[in-house]
Amino acid sequence: MSKKEQQSNAKRNMLRIIPLGGLGEIGKNMTVFEYGDDILIVDTGIMFPESDMLGIDYIIPDFKYLMDKRDRVKGIVITHGHEDHTGAIHHVVEQINAPIYATPLTKGLLEVKLARGGQSGKVKVNEVKAGDTVQIGAFKVEFCHVCHSIPDCVALGITTPAGLVVHTGDYKLDHTPVDNWPTDYAKLAEFAGRGVLAMLGDSTNADRAGWTPSERVIEPAFDKVFREAQGRILVATFASLISRIQQVGEAALRHGRKMAFVGTSMRENARMAKQLGYLSLPDELLVPIDEALKLPVHEVVLMCTGSQGEPSSIVGRLATGTNRQFDLLPTDTVVLSSHPIPGNEESVSRTINKLFERGAHVIYDPVEAVHVSGHASQEEMKFMLNLIKPKYVIPVHGELRHLHQHAAIAESLGYADENVAIVQNGQVIEFRGGKMFMGERLPGGYVFVDGASVGDIGPAVMRERDALSREGFVLVNINVNRQSGKLLRDPEIITRGFVYRQDDDFATETRRQIEKTLAESNGDLQHQLEMRLRDHFLNATKRKPMIFVMINKN
Amino acid sequence: MSKKEQQSNAKRNMLRIIPLGGLGEIGKNMTVFEYGDDILIVDTGIMFPESDMLGIDYIIPDFKYLMDKRDRVKGIVITHGHEDHTGAIHHVVEQINAPIYATPLTKGLLEVKLARGGQSGKVKVNEVKAGDTVQIGAFKVEFCHVCHSIPDCVALGITTPAGLVVHTGDYKLDHTPVDNWPTDYAKLAEFAGRGVLAMLGDSTNADRAGWTPSERVIEPAFDKVFREAQGRILVATFASLISRIQQVGEAALRHGRKMAFVGTSMRENARMAKQLGYLSLPDELLVPIDEALKLPVHEVVLMCTGSQGEPSSIVGRLATGTNRQFDLLPTDTVVLSSHPIPGNEESVSRTINKLFERGAHVIYDPVEAVHVSGHASQEEMKFMLNLIKPKYVIPVHGELRHLHQHAAIAESLGYADENVAIVQNGQVIEFRGGKMFMGERLPGGYVFVDGASVGDIGPAVMRERDALSREGFVLVNINVNRQSGKLLRDPEIITRGFVYRQDDDFATETRRQIEKTLAESNGDLQHQLEMRLRDHFLNATKRKPMIFVMINKN
Repeated sequence: MSKKEQQSNAKRNMLRIIPLGGLGEIGKNMTVFEYGDDILIVDTGIMFPESDMLGIDYIIPDFKYLMDKRDRVKGIVITHGHEDHTGAIHHVVEQINAPIYATPLTKGLLEVKLARGGQSGKVKVNEVKAGDTVQIGAFKVEFCHVCHSIPDCVALGITTPAGLVVHTGDYKLDHTPVDNWPTDYAKLAEFAGRGVLAMLGDSTNADRAGWTPSERVIEPAFDKVFREAQGRILVATFASLISRIQQVGEAALRHGRKMAFVGTSMRENARMAKQLGYLSLPDELLVPIDEALKLPVHEVVLMCTGSQGEPSSIVGRLATGTNRQFDLLPTDTVVLSSHPIPGNEESVSRTINKLFERGAHVIYDPVEAVHVSGHASQEEMKFMLNLIKPKYVIPVHGELRHLHQHAAIAESLGYADENVAIVQNGQVIEFRGGKMFMGERLPGGYVFVDGASVGDIGPAVMRERDALSREGFVLVNINVNRQSGKLLRDPEIITRGFVYRQDDDFATETRRQIEKTLAESNGDLQHQLEMRLRDHFLNATKRKPMIFVMINKN
Repeated sequence: MSKKEQQSNAKRNMLRIIPLGGLGEIGKNMTVFEYGDDILIVDTGIMFPESDMLGIDYIIPDFKYLMDKRDRVKGIVITHGHEDHTGAIHHVVEQINAPIYATPLTKGLLEVKLARGGQSGKVKVNEVKAGDTVQIGAFKVEFCHVCHSIPDCVALGITTPAGLVVHTGDYKLDHTPVDNWPTDYAKLAEFAGRGVLAMLGDSTNADRAGWTPSERVIEPAFDKVFREAQGRILVATFASLISRIQQVGEAALRHGRKMAFVGTSMRENARMAKQLGYLSLPDELLVPIDEALKLPVHEVVLMCTGSQGEPSSIVGRLATGTNRQFDLLPTDTVVLSSHPIPGNEESVSRTINKLFERGAHVIYDPVEAVHVSGHASQEEMKFMLNLIKPKYVIPVHGELRHLHQHAAIAESLGYADENVAIVQNGQVIEFRGGKMFMGERLPGGYVFVDGASVGDIGPAVMRERDALSREGFVLVNINVNRQSGKLLRDPEIITRGFVYRQDDDFATETRRQIEKTLAESNGDLQHQLEMRLRDHFLNATKRKPMIFVMINKN
């Protein structure tokens, strides 16, 4: 056997787990499981760009690694229906043709997405139920119900020839969830009974002490809002926060208001969740928005998007007075029922201030407890570790700092350092002979999606956008006599994002600098002009705009 | 009397209060008091730009209103030494020549600032002490000690012919402050006894329930950090958080470590505070940084800047491995002892992750309680209102949403709506006959400082920078035969912040589009070319870069 064949054979008899892509958070949007010839993908999500990722629409995991192995992908399992776990599905199915597995609500949300991308027929989405077991290549995948802030979430028990690995997915241990369906502790205990080689565990709230409150805790806050509101109530949240929609509907029932959904995503998701039985609200409660707007103001609650201050959402447009169908009324109460995603804090604050400015009453956490996290806190994470008893702990779903806190939690339970793996995206984790080893680190990371371009935008373009955004540019167009090398006419100067005082002295000096350079130049005239003008502008303005000189010799 | 004279006379017999400038927060950075011919300025602070204010260094209040009245300004009072109350002093004294009044520590910090700007001799800074009374034109100003997160803060009792107005400044009601000097409740009660017409009150934490914990609460957290740290401890905070420096010094004493200050601002502020007696630390405790770096790692604590993740700060440079004097060690413990200022959340998170990546142990709130707010919470705000008993309440120092919460607090104490004024910056509040009225709203708002430019950068330039940052630009330079109108050579194309695939088909199509436009054009050729190319690029890339066409006819 050649050395390469030996290596390849060795690779065949081990389990490899690779958290892929995701920005800041590790293993959040996609994880690859590999055994022998078989590959299993868990989740296909997107991330939203950070505020200095200028002009980027969204970010998808870099799954280049799979490109020459696409035939080996036996299946794609999606743990739940949130964007950061489903949003890249159309990018993945464009490249990889493998069956998808998801629980009914997740399947419904995926199908809406695939239909929008014209990929409905292209790929099969198999419905699985919590409790089901599916053999996907070398992987026996067991679906175990867990609570989160959307119904029908699952953790995964993945049995491989190397051992049983549990992936918690996003979870909280809610004893009184909105859909009355608590986490399946028995199944988790059963995994433990069989012996768990490794656990990949949600670390989102690893720096929060205690136990995340049940989704139910927001009900008194909503009751207070409904009791005190004099006019309409508008509740803003994510369109995929189906449990929250259920809770607002129940509050509306208790307080005798009708409920309407505003905006396409909210309406479509609610319709689909209701059809599949995940939204349990009587038909008499629900009215179309046109009808809701005709009802007396104290008889209606509007459910809409915009809890992150997105300018194009319903609440974003109401805040700036640019919503078409209706305007804010001074008697309106607007409830923001979500926390800002990191990076959105400023736009959420600004939206709240604008809503106040337009006369609305605005309710947000911490003013009232109208939101609660969907992720486990420290005590739940301890519970999960003690319940599942994995040999190895791999903190995922969180920034590096959260993984470190999750590791500290594991260590407080007696885990040894070497049994806890804090890794970055792309790090291959190998299991052979019942032991964990660090493999290679895959290059790449995440891929920017910007208009029609997927992956063309790299660090160089981002640096250019950053420089332009800070300093603007100056464009100098000159026409020079081919023979004499002298200016044929006054230079033409265009600036954007840079203040260029068009006063006579400055323009005269600019022309003088150009003429001087033309006269003295020996060599790269364009470079010399750009350097000379850079100094000239820096002296005059203390700024360094990008400078471009176009030389037309005629 | 003419109508104008009547109006002018009416204005003379009233008190006018104008919160000026500030970005987002109201009345934070500067407030103007006007009675008759006399004007008093309270505070001259700066704001830091929000993340979409591209390339802006900082923001100062727009005090255009004072420009034709500068002779009437009788004095400038500074409540405390933080940047958001002092940072614009050199811009103000450039325009307005009036004596400044400040307590010793604040005066020291102001003088450092004025010296740096070469304005030391230009303006007189008068030292006042808490308890002092100074007559400044029509205003009798009484300085009343309050607690905050820097020593030597004052609230102001401003007696005018229209009545007594109390300005709380930034405050918390700390019963065990680090300098053992609690808020002067007796003085505040004395104001109340004389009858307070109006109170301008700090609203920063108006949405936080309860009572802000004393600065002392962080001591057990620091003791835990000092007890557990195996190597060096680096504590990052604001250079002006003098109380925190004192607390870290005391912890170092308790745990037998030496302390060194890293970076100019930290070193200068500590030196000045120590010299003035506001930092009470024995000389043996303090060592220069060179010496500290030679000590055994478990015997030293380094005090540095960078708690906001600023890339150019000490911690920012350590996180990216670009600090000159020393590098992070794997045994280092880094403590971030401050909360992110709104807008800095992302850069703080990123810095924490990078420090972990480089192997350091990082401690931050909420992992340990290593920071506490310097502003009053709801119960303190109620206490202040019940203590001072103003007739009118003017919430300031906070975003609009915080002012609304402060107003709700006042209303919960029985204040009528009409006795609480929620205003925006520039809104003139008038008092005559013991009553409050809303005057005009001054135009303007805040002024961007960008390099050498103060105020040149306006919304138009910001919009250009925003467009450039999102879409980049395409520059097309063409040379055309003056007679035939045909291209003399291939168009030259430069792009920045935009991905232009230089493949043959696309370049050929671009040239074809240009030639077609040249052939068909009747009228504004440049505009027609730009429109045509915009469509061309939009179709090909789904992006809308800025497009500039330079036409050289020769």
